[in-house]
Amino acid sequence: MKSNPLSLKAVQVTGSFWGPRRAINRTRTLPLEYTINKQRGVLKAYQWDWCDPTQGVAPWKIVVGDLGKWIEATAYSLATDPDPVLEAQMEEVVSEIMKGQKEDGYLFANPIRRDQQWANLQEYHELYDGGHTIEAAVAHYETTGRRHFLDAMCRYADLLVKTFGRKPGQIRGYCGHPEIELALMKLYRATGTPAYLELAEYFVDERGRQPYYFDVEREKNLASGLPFFKWYQPGHYVPCQAHQPLKEQKDAVGHSVRALYLYSGAVDVAAARGDRALLAACRRLWTSVTRRRMYITGGVGSTSIGEAFTFDYDLPDESGYAETCANIALVFFAHRFLQIEPSSDYADVMERALYNGILSGVALDGQKFFYANHLAVCPSATQGVNDATALTRQEWFGCACCPPNVARLLASLGQYVYSQSADTVYVHLFVNGAADCELAGRKVRLEQETRYPWEERVNLTVTPDQPGRFTVAVRLPGWCRKPRLRVNGKMQATAGLNRNGYALICREWRAGDQITMDLPMPVERVEAHPGVRMECGRIALQRGPVVYCLEEVDNGRNLADLIISRKAAIRAVFRPNLLGGCVVLNGLAQRRDLKGWSGVLYQTDRTPLKKVPFAAVPYALWANRKSGEMRVWIREE
Amino acid sequence: MKSNPLSLKAVQVTGSFWGPRRAINRTRTLPLEYTINKQRGVLKAYQWDWCDPTQGVAPWKIVVGDLGKWIEATAYSLATDPDPVLEAQMEEVVSEIMKGQKEDGYLFANPIRRDQQWANLQEYHELYDGGHTIEAAVAHYETTGRRHFLDAMCRYADLLVKTFGRKPGQIRGYCGHPEIELALMKLYRATGTPAYLELAEYFVDERGRQPYYFDVEREKNLASGLPFFKWYQPGHYVPCQAHQPLKEQKDAVGHSVRALYLYSGAVDVAAARGDRALLAACRRLWTSVTRRRMYITGGVGSTSIGEAFTFDYDLPDESGYAETCANIALVFFAHRFLQIEPSSDYADVMERALYNGILSGVALDGQKFFYANHLAVCPSATQGVNDATALTRQEWFGCACCPPNVARLLASLGQYVYSQSADTVYVHLFVNGAADCELAGRKVRLEQETRYPWEERVNLTVTPDQPGRFTVAVRLPGWCRKPRLRVNGKMQATAGLNRNGYALICREWRAGDQITMDLPMPVERVEAHPGVRMECGRIALQRGPVVYCLEEVDNGRNLADLIISRKAAIRAVFRPNLLGGCVVLNGLAQRRDLKGWSGVLYQTDRTPLKKVPFAAVPYALWANRKSGEMRVWIREE
Repeated sequence: MKSNPLSLKAVQVTGSFWGPRRAINRTRTLPLEYTINKQRGVLKAYQWDWCDPTQGVAPWKIVVGDLGKWIEATAYSLATDPDPVLEAQMEEVVSEIMKGQKEDGYLFANPIRRDQQWANLQEYHELYDGGHTIEAAVAHYETTGRRHFLDAMCRYADLLVKTFGRKPGQIRGYCGHPEIELALMKLYRATGTPAYLELAEYFVDERGRQPYYFDVEREKNLASGLPFFKWYQPGHYVPCQAHQPLKEQKDAVGHSVRALYLYSGAVDVAAARGDRALLAACRRLWTSVTRRRMYITGGVGSTSIGEAFTFDYDLPDESGYAETCANIALVFFAHRFLQIEPSSDYADVMERALYNGILSGVALDGQKFFYANHLAVCPSATQGVNDATALTRQEWFGCACCPPNVARLLASLGQYVYSQSADTVYVHLFVNGAADCELAGRKVRLEQETRYPWEERVNLTVTPDQPGRFTVAVRLPGWCRKPRLRVNGKMQATAGLNRNGYALICREWRAGDQITMDLPMPVERVEAHPGVRMECGRIALQRGPVVYCLEEVDNGRNLADLIISRKAAIRAVFRPNLLGGCVVLNGLAQRRDLKGWSGVLYQTDRTPLKKVPFAAVPYALWANRKSGEMRVWIREE
Repeated sequence: MKSNPLSLKAVQVTGSFWGPRRAINRTRTLPLEYTINKQRGVLKAYQWDWCDPTQGVAPWKIVVGDLGKWIEATAYSLATDPDPVLEAQMEEVVSEIMKGQKEDGYLFANPIRRDQQWANLQEYHELYDGGHTIEAAVAHYETTGRRHFLDAMCRYADLLVKTFGRKPGQIRGYCGHPEIELALMKLYRATGTPAYLELAEYFVDERGRQPYYFDVEREKNLASGLPFFKWYQPGHYVPCQAHQPLKEQKDAVGHSVRALYLYSGAVDVAAARGDRALLAACRRLWTSVTRRRMYITGGVGSTSIGEAFTFDYDLPDESGYAETCANIALVFFAHRFLQIEPSSDYADVMERALYNGILSGVALDGQKFFYANHLAVCPSATQGVNDATALTRQEWFGCACCPPNVARLLASLGQYVYSQSADTVYVHLFVNGAADCELAGRKVRLEQETRYPWEERVNLTVTPDQPGRFTVAVRLPGWCRKPRLRVNGKMQATAGLNRNGYALICREWRAGDQITMDLPMPVERVEAHPGVRMECGRIALQRGPVVYCLEEVDNGRNLADLIISRKAAIRAVFRPNLLGGCVVLNGLAQRRDLKGWSGVLYQTDRTPLKKVPFAAVPYALWANRKSGEMRVWIREE
């Protein structure tokens, strides 16, 4: 059954978990990002005249798209938390961008020559940049009600409609970095203009057809001598998501952000068109990603080489990647499916990414960011040849795509919590706060009280303006073996209510009716599929949706050698003063005694084990104290 | 007590292990390498006129040094196994090289301009090339007794003596790729010319002093516009072994072949000069390599990036490197120490590398080669972004340094088996065959009968031409817990005879006296230091000096999940028809049952284990059958 997310303005997110994080996002992260962009001159980036033909300016002097994401994040934040300073900054940025728009609607963050326009779709990211600006404009409009930016981006989109397609005189191409597809779908939903849907559909459908557009384009550019970086081999367009028509694809491959943005746009198109073949392809790719190529943190993209997916069960912890943007894009993909066919499978993945591989992308102070989210870190290995950014969050990046992406996700969290159809409201996430909606002709207020993910209890108060029959569909999280559900104190048999992982409670609701969920959160030892060759013999600790890790600061060095016995008792303790307040896991582990290893590299005598206490902290919170080793997967015996 | 290796001609290597391998080296590998070099025009590489100044020819069109190694290998082979065809080929190659020698003695395999000569010591490898050609000339002279090639290379060395050093007008530099140092020491020992020792000493000593010569050179080249690839950052000369004076170094760093060639030359210099400080530095570096940075196979160099050492205990199996040349260079380093201070420590490492990480470098048919010797391989990971050469041995390489290196080691094996002082003969390796030497005025013949490394028994027959008192020092291998030693049937107390891992048997020897060693070879489960983070919870199987591995062809896929229980019985069985005849290890293992994992990536229910038979084969012999997964380190529970 299809549903739609509740609008941001209808959802209040409060409470001790998300409240402070969103406040920091609003008061620290967004202002920081504004300042950095301003200092770096990015605000003026769109304002340029066509370059002189002799100049041959290469794009990529300024990173694209990130300003759009910042506007979007700020608009989302303002929707629930007005802030005149932030709003003024947002309007300044919007105005600076709009100044750069050309007569015909064209807009780009990099000065190019006229003959460069649309000439190198594979590499230049024009449509990627445009897509983010469209998303920004839609968010800006939805928050402020002011149309000027939206109208400007409609002019831009109209230019695309005129320029791209299969009609004579049009460019039969698509962008090397998908993003415009899902942006056009947002614009379509905001404006109702069918041409935007049609163009999004064209972009999704055209990709991967032969002859490859990028081959055609390449030939032209080689002949004309246009700046061309030759990142990709002719005919080998896996990184650009142009190797095969999406409908024919079975495995998630290539650059993981590009892949997941495309899949997200494709689900939108499939839903709008009722295109079953396209939806089936998206489902296959969903299965490929989430059943064979996803970290336990909801991170995706196993290699930094091309920031890409690799092959089934290849999920290296230390040398992995799991870019924050990719993990966020997985939430986009999941969230879109969730509207088409509510299933806890989608919400489980969304929640897994959110509480682990996405939250890890930003420091508790909102001022530093991880680009890659490794599942194990050895400090010596991060020096020199490898990536020092694995060890500590960084203040900024040359390609600063991740910081505003995590900011917009946090600012828009409300839209992921609920969705609704005419007579059903879905509760996807357990987030303290409230929401207002209309169900079966009743105005209904939902209030969630919970200290999730630290505590097991979720209280939902349902308050219709007058009694009415509708359905409250509460997610039964996949990680929870035995959820208990009471309505007004009366225990419900969840098995009978369960539809695809949601307990559908259909009844005559009256003001103040109470749903009480208890989601037992024992500490679970999670195994990975035996094909995940790096983690054989290891477990991850998970409690509720939260994946844990060991840090050197708590457990000393050589974490790879720490052993948690199958039988060891593990206590979960809430520590209010640690890492902003979190549940820590404590117990006794074993490790090899280093005595007897002095000056010895290999030996045949079995090393005695010694008992040691251990403490595991939520993965998302690591690297907020002293830097050092970290590890999610732990030896088990 | 110092000793010297027995000369190649004095040692016969026979028997079913080394005999066929050396025959294949002689009849298949050396002819193959000759043919490839000839087909590729490498034989003519030295013949060129100085390039026109406008040409600016860059070196590295032809790989350097490899032809020298081929001559050297061939000369060693001819020393024990005459072959007129090979000898004619050798003389042809020598003659082609000599044709290229310039008036002043200069020789190089790459056409350059006059102003390029010695102008880019950091990158051009002139002295590396020259070093290998010197080694070739010494080997050629020792086998044939003909002096022309040796004389030519003395002229070359004389040019170096004139050109390099601290005197006015000399270049105060050294080569970016060490090798000339050990070559000059060979030439010094062959000719007795002190200037060669002095120059070797200068090169060893000058390296790493400040101001860095490579900074000086860089400035000059940048100013003059000479071809300069800028491989290294100014002042950052770890890869070139020029970051710090060797005497001050504590950790083995940088390109591992360069490092170990340099250390080997340095031990030679230290021994010749009695330089204790230099020897102490070499000992520190020996400890760094063998106690903290060496694979269980005797492989060294943990990363392909810069073909380099990394940091302590960083020994990744799948992503490692352990270049065949580096593993051979480790034998050079060990062998030189062994002459200065006989200790089983050096011979143990030499043997470990020989039977594992070096033999793995060449296929059983002598026609294909590994450049890198990984300790685990996953076929999917070798495709695309990673190195396909990890999965199967290759016919040749763009930089073909390894194939002739392994050929020269096999051809010169005899010199590693024994060494002697005035009244002591050392038996370092257990190799079926015989040797002749003079000890305390007696001509002594030693005969070894053994099926080592497959069988535990080594019989040594000592036959002096007349009875005499001298010492036979037999190695007590470090891998062997309880060696048993009998002389003429009478058991000896090894503990009393043991000096640094050699049983010193000093007595009046008579013709036909028998030493019988029994070296019990139970299958050992070897652990790596807890700091080797990739192998915590894993063991390697070793029997005698031979390290074992699992191959997919015997054990199916997902080898990382195969578990050998601590208590599992493991049988060692000689299989005459497998892989040229070898001992295979068989037993029962366990692995997770894939039932219950269909469509599941993570789960909290413990997976049942199922019993499976396993077979492990010697690591050096892997990839001689069907390609697939391979793994040395195995889960243990």
